[in-house]
Amino acid sequence: MRKINKILVANRGEIALRVMRTAKEMGIKTVAVYSEADRNALHVRFADEAVCVGGPKSSDSYLRADIIIAVCKQLGVDAIHPGYGFLSENAGFAAQVKEAGIIFIGPSPEAIQLMGSKLAAKAAVAKYNIPMVPGTEDAITDIEEAKRIATTVGFPILIKASAGGGGKGMRVVESVEVFEEQMQLAVSEATSAFGDGAVFIEKYIGSPRHVEIQVLGDSHGNIVHIFERECSIQRRHQKVIEEAPSAVLTPALREEMGQCAVNVARACDYVSAGTVEFLVDENLNFYFLEMNTRLQVEHPVTEQITGLDLVREQILIAEGHEITFKQEDLKIKGHAMELRVYAEDPANNFLPDIGRLETYTRPQGLGVRVDDGFEQGMDIPIYYDPMIAKLVTFGKDRKEAIEKMVRAIDEYQITGIETTLPFGKFVMQHEAFVSGNFDTKFIERYFEPAMLLPQLDEATEEIGVALAAMLMETRKPQAASADGASMAPVSNWRTNRLK
Amino acid sequence: MRKINKILVANRGEIALRVMRTAKEMGIKTVAVYSEADRNALHVRFADEAVCVGGPKSSDSYLRADIIIAVCKQLGVDAIHPGYGFLSENAGFAAQVKEAGIIFIGPSPEAIQLMGSKLAAKAAVAKYNIPMVPGTEDAITDIEEAKRIATTVGFPILIKASAGGGGKGMRVVESVEVFEEQMQLAVSEATSAFGDGAVFIEKYIGSPRHVEIQVLGDSHGNIVHIFERECSIQRRHQKVIEEAPSAVLTPALREEMGQCAVNVARACDYVSAGTVEFLVDENLNFYFLEMNTRLQVEHPVTEQITGLDLVREQILIAEGHEITFKQEDLKIKGHAMELRVYAEDPANNFLPDIGRLETYTRPQGLGVRVDDGFEQGMDIPIYYDPMIAKLVTFGKDRKEAIEKMVRAIDEYQITGIETTLPFGKFVMQHEAFVSGNFDTKFIERYFEPAMLLPQLDEATEEIGVALAAMLMETRKPQAASADGASMAPVSNWRTNRLK
Repeated sequence: MRKINKILVANRGEIALRVMRTAKEMGIKTVAVYSEADRNALHVRFADEAVCVGGPKSSDSYLRADIIIAVCKQLGVDAIHPGYGFLSENAGFAAQVKEAGIIFIGPSPEAIQLMGSKLAAKAAVAKYNIPMVPGTEDAITDIEEAKRIATTVGFPILIKASAGGGGKGMRVVESVEVFEEQMQLAVSEATSAFGDGAVFIEKYIGSPRHVEIQVLGDSHGNIVHIFERECSIQRRHQKVIEEAPSAVLTPALREEMGQCAVNVARACDYVSAGTVEFLVDENLNFYFLEMNTRLQVEHPVTEQITGLDLVREQILIAEGHEITFKQEDLKIKGHAMELRVYAEDPANNFLPDIGRLETYTRPQGLGVRVDDGFEQGMDIPIYYDPMIAKLVTFGKDRKEAIEKMVRAIDEYQITGIETTLPFGKFVMQHEAFVSGNFDTKFIERYFEPAMLLPQLDEATEEIGVALAAMLMETRKPQAASADGASMAPVSNWRTNRLK
Repeated sequence: MRKINKILVANRGEIALRVMRTAKEMGIKTVAVYSEADRNALHVRFADEAVCVGGPKSSDSYLRADIIIAVCKQLGVDAIHPGYGFLSENAGFAAQVKEAGIIFIGPSPEAIQLMGSKLAAKAAVAKYNIPMVPGTEDAITDIEEAKRIATTVGFPILIKASAGGGGKGMRVVESVEVFEEQMQLAVSEATSAFGDGAVFIEKYIGSPRHVEIQVLGDSHGNIVHIFERECSIQRRHQKVIEEAPSAVLTPALREEMGQCAVNVARACDYVSAGTVEFLVDENLNFYFLEMNTRLQVEHPVTEQITGLDLVREQILIAEGHEITFKQEDLKIKGHAMELRVYAEDPANNFLPDIGRLETYTRPQGLGVRVDDGFEQGMDIPIYYDPMIAKLVTFGKDRKEAIEKMVRAIDEYQITGIETTLPFGKFVMQHEAFVSGNFDTKFIERYFEPAMLLPQLDEATEEIGVALAAMLMETRKPQAASADGASMAPVSNWRTNRLK
């Protein structure tokens, strides 16, 4: 048992604030690191101490393991929380931290290493009989062998270039009749594109849902799962809306996937919070994808439905404490939604829209949580992920969480840049999402940028919001009349003075 | 069953916003009313429609039942939510609303009337054997009879002038030996002060705790209790800190008090959300005080520990729906604290400190909810209750809720006026409060205004906060250096640039 008195958060933005808030609640001192682009960032102001570690580029600052460890030594830091991204899944960094006598709030370097390699991870979990997408173990070029495997796996199948990535060199084959022709094309394409004709063959899952299980392990060998999050609404293969629990899991399937996730964690002696990702097909078959050996962006939805503070659990585990609850103590209490509010233009293919937050007012009230790292007037830096905030809502059931999300999106005021807020509202009001009948192809199936073009009502709303902002700016109550000033969608604005 | 499509909130400030947020989530249109002093108030901007109903004084605006009902008729309003205070417990108003064919989101005029009279309420609940503070039924002057009653009740007893009020004309008598002398003094004091020497005699409860039970009744005769709130931290006999559950109730006592509260509600055929208040003595005996026939200021703590939205339940009940859960479905999930953030100076006997919110930044993050009605730059009007916000925190247990409250108080930035925030921090860190061993006399027992005088660290913090505000004001990132800027208590501020 080793009490942590001072934590350095090797990260920026909302996750740095998130971690520091819990540290403060636990009476632990906090140290921020920041790049030259983040001099005015909230995480810098929020920390007890703050150190500039280098230039704006991540490689000059947030990725400088050597400088970060030197700061720890200079300031007497006991422990580093890596957040997500940056150095969080860098086994070498975790090892260096350990060697320096500092606690790494996360899993062992060995677990990070093991789960960082798909092949090694598959080998490690083999004895636990974890379901995987069926297909070839190794890359092959032989057409006859490929055909035999494809027939065993069952059509449709996917041919993937061994040297490809990010969707390149992929080909869906619907039936055995066209297999040879497609395989030949795939091999020759792969050869010309990557100089390597070897391909993998695996079962093609046409309507996959992304469902992941939160796990928590301690240094005494206890591992529990903390239910699932569904993250099927993605753009560019990246999550933008997450929820817990999933709309489609049954209690039995939840328990089965949870046990699988615990076994994956056990296979690498996992300590701290981690996430085991699965694909779920139309028939609710599930397949292990990979394990993320860190706190996830979307961890708040799990916190909201369980009442747990996952960062507090991480810190207690890092101090050497045993997890204080058992699997059977955990219960799902309600439903939570998260919308990642990005500085992106959903009407323009979700391209980043960097700039200044001219207006920035968060929604409030029952069932709304906003985790962010900005205040009105701040600029979104071009150097990092353009996430402004995570808007989280929760209610007693999925319907209530969705209703609260729509209300919170309407209440959120951001001007100066485009954001994913209107896209979020589109999803929350789409029949497929509301009914729970959706998958990772939601955007390509249902979303057209034109759907977000302002309607008459919304145009009126924008004028109202702009007017309200101007009136606020004057800060002269006698000059600013409430008539016409609106902070929320106004569909039928009337102001009257009855005598 | 009558669907509500448009609600008028006959109130202002945080509770008006609170009600409108839920209405929006339910797809119900909202109408605000406001006084001339509230032209720029947030509840006016937040509503779909807003009507100025009169001058700044409550009696000219928020209490004008006639104008408010006329607004409803003009705008096609189906239902009125009265919030708390103002017209919320005015049986005449509830009756007028009903006569006008508008739904009153609250109990019947008869229930309000009955519970508004202490004597009538006592008579109504008599058949349910509800425990009351023992003493005289009627005011008396006869010393011998008084002595007999006092002896039966048991010392110490309290002599209260029948015509007194607010603590005037009260006298605690410790033993039978001094009773006659004290009774004579009390009668002659009452005679000279009020022209009426009649007194009540009741058991004196030296260390009372204020514990109240939330109840919910529907128009089908179902009544459930939703556990207790403890509101013992009071200044001037008014609540300032509330929590749920109470630190001292056992499950058996909770069930017993809950059943009592359900019976009190049954005695007046209670419909909607209501609260039954009790005193609890050192030995955990409890005594019925009164029933509040409206939503309470402190209702959020109950929402946070149950996952219920009490305003949503009120609206559904007003539409004629049956409550969808049974008593046995309700479970306590965690612990919640509420601090009322008043524009008052706790170092100056909690006198109101009206003015402008020069800086106003709310705390955020897991386990923090702020219900308020102000933005930075706004003035706290002198005409109404000087409550700025309700700061609510919640965690898996009482310790965590307290830790989150301390962190949230530190994170809350309010300058321009004095508030109850530092007093709240004092309470949260006081051994008696932390241990749960406190009563309604907490302030007189433990609090000295000098305890809030800035220490060296806090003075440093104030400079830091002021500097941060100045830097924010410039809004020139290149000019504003983070060095020295602090948004939270800084005890050991250092900023370094490592090479």
